[in-house]
Amino acid sequence: MQDFSFCNTTRIEFGKGKERNIGSYMKDFGAKKAIILYGSERVKKSGLLDTATDSLRQNGIEFTQCGGVKSNPVLSKVKEAIKIAKDFGADSVLAIGGGSVLDSAKAVAAGACYDGDVWDFFTGKSPSLALKIFDIITLAATGSEMNSGAVVTREETRQKYAIDGRVLYPKVSVIDPELQASVSREYLVYSASDIIAHSIEGYFTASVQPGLISSYVEANIKAVIKTTEILLANPDDYDARAEFAWAATMALNGLTYVGTGGYSYPNHMIEHAMSAVIDCAHGAGLSVVMPAWMKWYKGRNLAQFKRFAREIFGLKGADEGIAALEAWFNKIGTPTKLSQLNIQGSVLNDVIAVARTNAKDWGMGEIYTKEAITEIFELAK
Amino acid sequence: MQDFSFCNTTRIEFGKGKERNIGSYMKDFGAKKAIILYGSERVKKSGLLDTATDSLRQNGIEFTQCGGVKSNPVLSKVKEAIKIAKDFGADSVLAIGGGSVLDSAKAVAAGACYDGDVWDFFTGKSPSLALKIFDIITLAATGSEMNSGAVVTREETRQKYAIDGRVLYPKVSVIDPELQASVSREYLVYSASDIIAHSIEGYFTASVQPGLISSYVEANIKAVIKTTEILLANPDDYDARAEFAWAATMALNGLTYVGTGGYSYPNHMIEHAMSAVIDCAHGAGLSVVMPAWMKWYKGRNLAQFKRFAREIFGLKGADEGIAALEAWFNKIGTPTKLSQLNIQGSVLNDVIAVARTNAKDWGMGEIYTKEAITEIFELAK
Repeated sequence: MQDFSFCNTTRIEFGKGKERNIGSYMKDFGAKKAIILYGSERVKKSGLLDTATDSLRQNGIEFTQCGGVKSNPVLSKVKEAIKIAKDFGADSVLAIGGGSVLDSAKAVAAGACYDGDVWDFFTGKSPSLALKIFDIITLAATGSEMNSGAVVTREETRQKYAIDGRVLYPKVSVIDPELQASVSREYLVYSASDIIAHSIEGYFTASVQPGLISSYVEANIKAVIKTTEILLANPDDYDARAEFAWAATMALNGLTYVGTGGYSYPNHMIEHAMSAVIDCAHGAGLSVVMPAWMKWYKGRNLAQFKRFAREIFGLKGADEGIAALEAWFNKIGTPTKLSQLNIQGSVLNDVIAVARTNAKDWGMGEIYTKEAITEIFELAK
Repeated sequence: MQDFSFCNTTRIEFGKGKERNIGSYMKDFGAKKAIILYGSERVKKSGLLDTATDSLRQNGIEFTQCGGVKSNPVLSKVKEAIKIAKDFGADSVLAIGGGSVLDSAKAVAAGACYDGDVWDFFTGKSPSLALKIFDIITLAATGSEMNSGAVVTREETRQKYAIDGRVLYPKVSVIDPELQASVSREYLVYSASDIIAHSIEGYFTASVQPGLISSYVEANIKAVIKTTEILLANPDDYDARAEFAWAATMALNGLTYVGTGGYSYPNHMIEHAMSAVIDCAHGAGLSVVMPAWMKWYKGRNLAQFKRFAREIFGLKGADEGIAALEAWFNKIGTPTKLSQLNIQGSVLNDVIAVARTNAKDWGMGEIYTKEAITEIFELAK
């Protein structure tokens, strides 16, 4: 077991109607002036934005707003929101939406307390100050609601990179599974893919991986598989929705990475190139990458791939486990082939080039050469 | 899934030699004057106390000391330490030892900021202020290093009761598995019993129990079973020691209880009567209670008992699972019968009477009548 330091200070408020108390939760942390960040107009139509602003008013919290954050959130929108936050003198940011909105909010929180270019934090600099971060998370996938990371794309360079820092843990995250019941079938399966990707990165790549940590990962993956199937049959199953949501949070709150060592995020590194180039859904890209990457990587950690097959699917061989995961992705309807995303020809060449740059910038350049990345994509054809 | 609020702010510093930085960790939280609490003289002989005090001196933290905390820690010692802490003007308490020392430290932390009787906090009052709590935990069992609870015995009334409150989360807990390698064979198996007890209370008694949470519990129990066997064969196996330690922490840091509802701690309620009356090791008492309680309780939650048998031991029936756990306790050498603890005759009557009082005080009086408790003890004969 690797030495580690763990501290996750986020308070989770989980359950029905908890969003109605958001103002009171923010008041607990002294919030007085907030910028509210959101994505599409759906949060207005659904009444969720009104619910939140009512609660802020009741608790004497002034606010301004910035909507229009999109999936695969972009740096230009973050910069727009930072300006609004600074002009308003915000002490807090409240994200209402999915992982893209919350990730943008984290970047805004850091950028609003910084005179330089917020992109500095995505390329090595660590933020030491940030606005207080709060969120009402309406899509279970990224796990951003209980960690200190965020991913944003710089459009002009097609860099989809991450910011991380202790100051970026949300103070309070509201997870109301009922709010997540309206997620489309499509985004449900993409989310399942994303959660599984968060789970397997460390599980397969870590050079030090305690059995107990593997067991937690397997618990999360099995819960995702089980609850996704229940939700596809019945989107209104509250308990399945809730368990799915909590598996998403637990998959990336640090607890499946403590005590592990030498791991990396190759599936994310590769997928970020895909969504940076063709703006596909992150989870859709990941379900294409994962089976291909697993076939390519399995020989480096065969015992763990066998364990995966056995524990997740009750199967014997590494190949059988990979095939079962791919078959499951096909069954639920998330893509597993590049052609399903129209990635081919010059687009594929573009993606490979961006992935190769990612590999170098993310410290994986030695293993993930241009040839290696090409081989992985070959397996996804 | 039950609604919940979760926030665990404890920072864990896990790994070899981390105790050498304790002063620096305390300084991170502004500690300036600390009372060091410890148990036996072993922490002096081993050099651990010197390591800690050297680190405190290097970080400009003044300190006073109070040793002699015993297993099943008592209120009189807590009160002695509170007086020392108040006289010294301590802002922090550093526990060096096992769960008993840390639990005492939590009570001291609350009591030192309170003018009344610290026992008030064990009988309904919630502490709103406390000294900053730090610890170097030398025995993996209670999970106290990452939760807000503590158990202390009031000798004259034989009440072994709990204090709990948000202010009682340790700021930093040091878990160095190497420090735990000197734990006796006896205390290793008692600890295994204690961790399993923490795991099963919610698992079996909750009226709402998400499958995902059950899976985490099972992961912890399986890790304890596996690593205990490794450690009995080879006490110096670092990875097994580390995994055992982390399973102990994870078993009672709240994450195996979120989303569950309607649970109680009957095994602890009953065992606390035993250790309050005959001062037996808590884990030894628990391994006697658990199989008996499981036999008595199984009909109330048969599906979960079958799941336990299947997931933990690969067996089919509820009875087989209970028998397998009892056999495993026998195999590792922790007692499973009252006679092994010399609890019989008038002593047993005494224990039953105290357990019955506990049941009423802990809100379990309706189920755990004198007759029920007697029946459970009959099954432990």
